[in-house]
Amino acid sequence: MINVLLAAPPAYWDEYEAPLGRALDAAGLNANLSMDHAPEDVDYIVYAPHKALQDFSPFKRCKAVLSLWAGVEKIVGNQSLTMPLTRMVDPGLKKGMVEFVTGHVLRYHLGMDQHILVQDGVWRHSPPPLAQDRKVTVLGLGELGQTCAEMLVQFGFQVRGWSRSQRQVAGVACFSGSDGLQEALRGAEIVVLLLPDTPNTENLLDAQALAVLAHGAKVINPGRGPLIDDKALLAALDSGQVGHATLDVFRVEPLPAEHPYWAHPNVTVTPHIASETRADTASEVIAENIRRAEAGEPLLFVVDRAAGY
Amino acid sequence: MINVLLAAPPAYWDEYEAPLGRALDAAGLNANLSMDHAPEDVDYIVYAPHKALQDFSPFKRCKAVLSLWAGVEKIVGNQSLTMPLTRMVDPGLKKGMVEFVTGHVLRYHLGMDQHILVQDGVWRHSPPPLAQDRKVTVLGLGELGQTCAEMLVQFGFQVRGWSRSQRQVAGVACFSGSDGLQEALRGAEIVVLLLPDTPNTENLLDAQALAVLAHGAKVINPGRGPLIDDKALLAALDSGQVGHATLDVFRVEPLPAEHPYWAHPNVTVTPHIASETRADTASEVIAENIRRAEAGEPLLFVVDRAAGY
Ligand SMILES: NC(=O)c1ccc[n+]([C@@H]2O[C@H](COP(=O)([O-])OP(=O)(O)OC[C@H]3O[C@@H](n4cnc5c(N)ncnc54)[C@H](OP(=O)(O)O)[C@@H]3O)[C@@H](O)[C@H]2O)c1
Ligand SMILES: NC(=O)c1ccc[n+]([C@@H]2O[C@H](COP(=O)([O-])OP(=O)(O)OC[C@H]3O[C@@H](n4cnc5c(N)ncnc54)[C@H](OP(=O)(O)O)[C@@H]3O)[C@@H](O)[C@H]2O)c1
Repeated sequence: MINVLLAAPPAYWDEYEAPLGRALDAAGLNANLSMDHAPEDVDYIVYAPHKALQDFSPFKRCKAVLSLWAGVEKIVGNQSLTMPLTRMVDPGLKKGMVEFVTGHVLRYHLGMDQHILVQDGVWRHSPPPLAQDRKVTVLGLGELGQTCAEMLVQFGFQVRGWSRSQRQVAGVACFSGSDGLQEALRGAEIVVLLLPDTPNTENLLDAQALAVLAHGAKVINPGRGPLIDDKALLAALDSGQVGHATLDVFRVEPLPAEHPYWAHPNVTVTPHIASETRADTASEVIAENIRRAEAGEPLLFVVDRAAGY
Repeated sequence: MINVLLAAPPAYWDEYEAPLGRALDAAGLNANLSMDHAPEDVDYIVYAPHKALQDFSPFKRCKAVLSLWAGVEKIVGNQSLTMPLTRMVDPGLKKGMVEFVTGHVLRYHLGMDQHILVQDGVWRHSPPPLAQDRKVTVLGLGELGQTCAEMLVQFGFQVRGWSRSQRQVAGVACFSGSDGLQEALRGAEIVVLLLPDTPNTENLLDAQALAVLAHGAKVINPGRGPLIDDKALLAALDSGQVGHATLDVFRVEPLPAEHPYWAHPNVTVTPHIASETRADTASEVIAENIRRAEAGEPLLFVVDRAAGY
């Protein structure tokens, strides 16, 4: 019997009990899934961020911590977590992100807000340019960023991408490393942030980076809150250097009601909905990793603890 | 010397003089482009809807009327137009339509308006379903409808399509003829209209058709105004059977300021901007058709006068 602990906020139980149970069965594993195993009995931890579990040291025989989230910034630096840590790469997560990013890029590209907000009876016939005349930059070319960039290429957008190591993505002008950032951002009309939250990515979109964008550029952040220097972004929104921002993630979530982003006329706050791990597909990923661990095969999607993602 | 008359509102001259001149040259044609040829001297008419030209009978030696617009409902029934009539099929037109349609389908799918309009400081975490769980129907599977349907398939939407003759489009459940309409529409959550305006398509989206949609369905009309029974749509919007509509085309354009669509809280009026003929690419299509006519080759995109499109 393999003891699998679901260490997550209570609502996860209703969502995961059935699909994860099914996936573990389907993987041929004799597993006992619970939110309440004694630490010393736990073989695997399936993890979503919550406050209750901070100390992993009592989990002496635990063979891996398997994150249900793609972003692992909340535990990657936890010193008591000495077993392997994997993150979530899930087809459902990818699909949702492509829908969110493409939807908001097209929203900005087409100038939809003007029509949604201003229905004043005045016929202003000014068609938008084609996507092929629009410069979009995607920061982060990992599982999510690359898939989004590829979809944007299909619309004909002029897509640039940026990552830590040099990548090759068909149709995307790829840049890497600190040197490449300015080149990736210069003149961009729409910027999409799909980087993880690590010490190296904190405040990456600061006053200097914002200054090289096209005047009136749009910023879409479905990555992580700390990627943006909030003060610099607010200043750029006020000066008009940034025309509008759609922010899905924040340093503090839920974003406090009094935060200036809520009130800013040129900011759309979305409540961390860009993409959800989907229980059905994510359960299969988790079960496959437990099967691998039991069979002595290498785990999928292992987090690089030094890089922080 | 081939005399080509640009018969269009005056603003077209600035837009088309250079690109159409270049395209005619590139096609090896010795052409004289003007907005002011005497009717009896005209070899070809390049046409966009305008009031001045209603009688084509004085154009005795004119070999073809080449429309710059995809929709030809304004002249297809003109009895004095006895020469061949072609319509515009232009890669730029197609791209623009794919961007508009995908953008608005994703807008509805993601529930963007809620976020754009309501920034009240309340964190409502409810992620949308995936596209694969969303039913979208495209009415019209011609040059534009098919291309839009194919893009929606790439996002994973459950796409149904409808046309006069039976079509086959990969990933799209295709229906045809009057019998197929109900099947195509039943339970649809988002409907896109890309039909031409003909006697057979008038008021196609009437009370009966609207009644079979999913409750709260969204309607996107970048086709033509007369496709919709406006009274029936307004009633369905008021009852909630239709949740929202984005209308780009109308029986009368510009849509009069006092029209109820402007004031309706669940309607977005866009000013016939879904897609524009792009002068560069459209000029090449026109020049190619003149070259064909001069060489005795069959014209491209000839309008079926009986079918009306
Ligand atoms: N809002 C939401 O609902 C939601 C949902 C899921 C995920 N997310 C966020 O999206 C992020 C990306 O997810 P993913 O699965 O695509 O991650 P991933 O596969 O690990 O990709 C991360 C990308 O960022 C690049 N990167 C990391 N550090 C960098 C640095 N210092 N400089 C330049 N590039 C750097 C990586 O470069 P290399 O290619 O060289 O490794 C890689 O291209 C997650 O970390 C999470 O924060 C948000
Ligand atoms: N808003 C804008 O900016 C804008 C821009 C360009 C075009 N448009 C509109 O878009 C329309 C479509 O353009 P297109 O180039 O795709 O036209 P198209 O290639 O002629 O396609 C028309 C489609 O409608 C179908 N259809 C016609 N009559 C029908 C009927 N009675 N019942 C069922 N299906 C019928 C046709 O069926 P078959 O396949 O069997 O022929 C075909 O699939 C144009 O007519 C124009 O009104 C709007």
